[in-house]
Amino acid sequence: MDRSLYHVLGAKQFDRAELDRLFAASKEMEGVVAAGGDKRLSGRIMTTLFFEASTRTRLSFESAMNRLGGSVIGTENAAQFSSAIKGETLEDTIRIITGYSDVIVMRHTEIGAAKRAAKVAGIPVINAGDGAGEHPTQALLDAYTIQKEFGRIDGLKIAMVGDLTYGRTVHSLSYILANYQDVMVYYIAPENVQIPSYVKQYMDEKGIRYQETNDLNAVAGSVDVVYQTRIQKERFPSVEEYEKAAGKYIIDAALMDRMRKEAIVLHPLPRAGEITEEVDADPRAAYFRQAHNGLYIRMALIAKCLNMAD
Amino acid sequence: MDRSLYHVLGAKQFDRAELDRLFAASKEMEGVVAAGGDKRLSGRIMTTLFFEASTRTRLSFESAMNRLGGSVIGTENAAQFSSAIKGETLEDTIRIITGYSDVIVMRHTEIGAAKRAAKVAGIPVINAGDGAGEHPTQALLDAYTIQKEFGRIDGLKIAMVGDLTYGRTVHSLSYILANYQDVMVYYIAPENVQIPSYVKQYMDEKGIRYQETNDLNAVAGSVDVVYQTRIQKERFPSVEEYEKAAGKYIIDAALMDRMRKEAIVLHPLPRAGEITEEVDADPRAAYFRQAHNGLYIRMALIAKCLNMAD
Amino acid sequence: MDRSLYHVLGAKQFDRAELDRLFAASKEMEGVVAAGGDKRLSGRIMTTLFFEASTRTRLSFESAMNRLGGSVIGTENAAQFSSAIKGETLEDTIRIITGYSDVIVMRHTEIGAAKRAAKVAGIPVINAGDGAGEHPTQALLDAYTIQKEFGRIDGLKIAMVGDLTYGRTVHSLSYILANYQDVMVYYIAPENVQIPSYVKQYMDEKGIRYQETNDLNAVAGSVDVVYQTRIQKERFPSVEEYEKAAGKYIIDAALMDRMRKEAIVLHPLPRAGEITEEVDADPRAAYFRQAHNGLYIRMALIAKCLNMAD
Repeated sequence: MDRSLYHVLGAKQFDRAELDRLFAASKEMEGVVAAGGDKRLSGRIMTTLFFEASTRTRLSFESAMNRLGGSVIGTENAAQFSSAIKGETLEDTIRIITGYSDVIVMRHTEIGAAKRAAKVAGIPVINAGDGAGEHPTQALLDAYTIQKEFGRIDGLKIAMVGDLTYGRTVHSLSYILANYQDVMVYYIAPENVQIPSYVKQYMDEKGIRYQETNDLNAVAGSVDVVYQTRIQKERFPSVEEYEKAAGKYIIDAALMDRMRKEAIVLHPLPRAGEITEEVDADPRAAYFRQAHNGLYIRMALIAKCLNMAD
Repeated sequence: MDRSLYHVLGAKQFDRAELDRLFAASKEMEGVVAAGGDKRLSGRIMTTLFFEASTRTRLSFESAMNRLGGSVIGTENAAQFSSAIKGETLEDTIRIITGYSDVIVMRHTEIGAAKRAAKVAGIPVINAGDGAGEHPTQALLDAYTIQKEFGRIDGLKIAMVGDLTYGRTVHSLSYILANYQDVMVYYIAPENVQIPSYVKQYMDEKGIRYQETNDLNAVAGSVDVVYQTRIQKERFPSVEEYEKAAGKYIIDAALMDRMRKEAIVLHPLPRAGEITEEVDADPRAAYFRQAHNGLYIRMALIAKCLNMAD
Repeated sequence: MDRSLYHVLGAKQFDRAELDRLFAASKEMEGVVAAGGDKRLSGRIMTTLFFEASTRTRLSFESAMNRLGGSVIGTENAAQFSSAIKGETLEDTIRIITGYSDVIVMRHTEIGAAKRAAKVAGIPVINAGDGAGEHPTQALLDAYTIQKEFGRIDGLKIAMVGDLTYGRTVHSLSYILANYQDVMVYYIAPENVQIPSYVKQYMDEKGIRYQETNDLNAVAGSVDVVYQTRIQKERFPSVEEYEKAAGKYIIDAALMDRMRKEAIVLHPLPRAGEITEEVDADPRAAYFRQAHNGLYIRMALIAKCLNMAD
């Protein structure tokens, strides 16, 4: 790996000082967008290499590159169309794209794919999700949103809800939160999809308090942030068990009534029923603001990768 | 719906004054393209969101945005690749894209989808086709072509030929033509795919004369415009009935001989045999000029949406 | 065909003088990229029309256009998504795209498709591969790489290895090499996939020496260039025969030991085992340098098509 390059591979690479710098840079990017963008990346090229579809994430990165004056090449369906089907290794693909662009944003189905790419790339690599592994830019925008909404992350109580085993965003977000003081995390999930032990071990090492429970109602009234995620049907032995579980984790008007007046609801989106539409009008529903924050975080990260941060 | 935004949702929203302004702006765009484009939309981003493939329409919009200096993000296969397959509503998709770009061009399989999008969008929405509903920008370029070819639309006799039930372009074009004086429309189709009653009702309300017939030959000699469309096999009870019907509506050299010397042939394209290639060399074959006019109309509409019309 | 346009359709259209000019222009493009690109194609639009997937080739062209300040529209899956599935002819598609852009880069599954396109296009067409036909820009970057690595092509001994019947790049490269003095070509392949007689006939006409053999080991020690390609399983009557054949044409450390110290190994890529990874670290492994050279050649060709070469 070329250590002189700035890659974004996993949430654990960020310490508090870097998070503070990144969030300050993201805040500046809000001003850049409000002013109609700028041209600091004019002539630079980003490749989006998505082996797994993710329209939302891809468009967010492409918008970020364009807002800074750069251009984008890429494929929205690398798995089906690229030379991967001709038997080419990921490493060969990356070596070649190194010659065509200045930064690679990639999503892959396999854990560790972004790290493998970074090892042979001659340009920075940004991990936009690697299977059940990590999704660091999502976690960064999640944390940035909390910081914006409360003015701080230190001292907050944060509940993560849903499929905590396979949902990579809650893993990455846990690693980010581990940089803050006096944070309390509630992992709220059916037992079969609770937070993995390797995440808990990391939190233990960092001295972060957390509690596992399956009871959202009991916790809802005392937290600052409810971070909702999807529960996937295929994780459960039967449809009945799934429905019993899923029904306990829906955020609706009744649950909002239990929540604190200054609390917020987040969701990495897309949602599929686990936050009802009646919640959207509540000012505590912060998930669309959260989605929009992804643009600023990604602008700041791309600029940093290309040494064009202010 | 944010009423301060300029959306392009259906042909009925255009009155004569707006059509005159739009066609004048499109004429100016011809000069802009001839001069190599300009940069008035530099820094602005268009999202093309195509839930149904349409390479031609998408490329036309993307070319229009690029000719004015803007950039484009998007997906050519939203239905298969986007979070739609994870159960996300169109509304959520639109809310999120609002944060990534300045204007949305969307094609969808469902009637009314563009209107639903416009209701929640924080940026302008342009309908590039919504199922069997409308395709307003096609109708606008059709009318613009007639205006260019004849110097006027008032007083013309216009025959629409083919599948008038399911062909959305003839519906949208009828609504546009309803703004002009002394127009006569011939709806020429097999009875099972004639123009719907709701279109006729609109024409009645606007006082536009029209006639339904299944005999192209009888009408061809007296009209100024023959607007040909495809007849789709699956609309007919049997292949024999389809072939009998389709064969009666082919524009070939023989039919051109019946037409007036100053008449023109239009087609929204793609064609699949309903205009034979021998017709292409006839100066009255205006369908490729028509396709190229789509660029100017779309440049004018995008500029208007982004308040950057001259 | 509009003879005033500069199309890139096949390798035979290039003579020695034009190759010299092109390679000089490509060399200049290396400087342009090192300096961060330029803006000479600002406002110009390239359409990439790929009826067959080829992420590598498409991204290379799109990068080339962007490095010169131009913009790109296109489709990565023309066969599935375009109006081709509605029965539109290639000619109609090209006529329409002529109105949207300034140059077309197309890949198609049928031999001769690029020539058919050029006949009706009002803008330059670049052939990015037409079925088992030609892939001229690949051959040009191959020859450019040889020129760069040795400072000359005249007088070199060049072995082409693999599937020489269906591999279009070796055909196009043979036609390019036919412009040089005192070149010797070795065609090394199993008998069932040897070089076609029409290629040999062309070499004969041009007075180029060549030899056919199935023994890579015998030739490896005496050549300057080993141009490796893939052998495809489906060309052989049985899996055993395929494996017997394929195994004889693998470039590994042992084969590198037989090669001359100043020789190089090329491959159009992607590879799938026919060059082992242990070879990558050998300075004579020139295939990734070769892939990167594709960018400069394509920049030079696009600039030439658009009359913006220096």
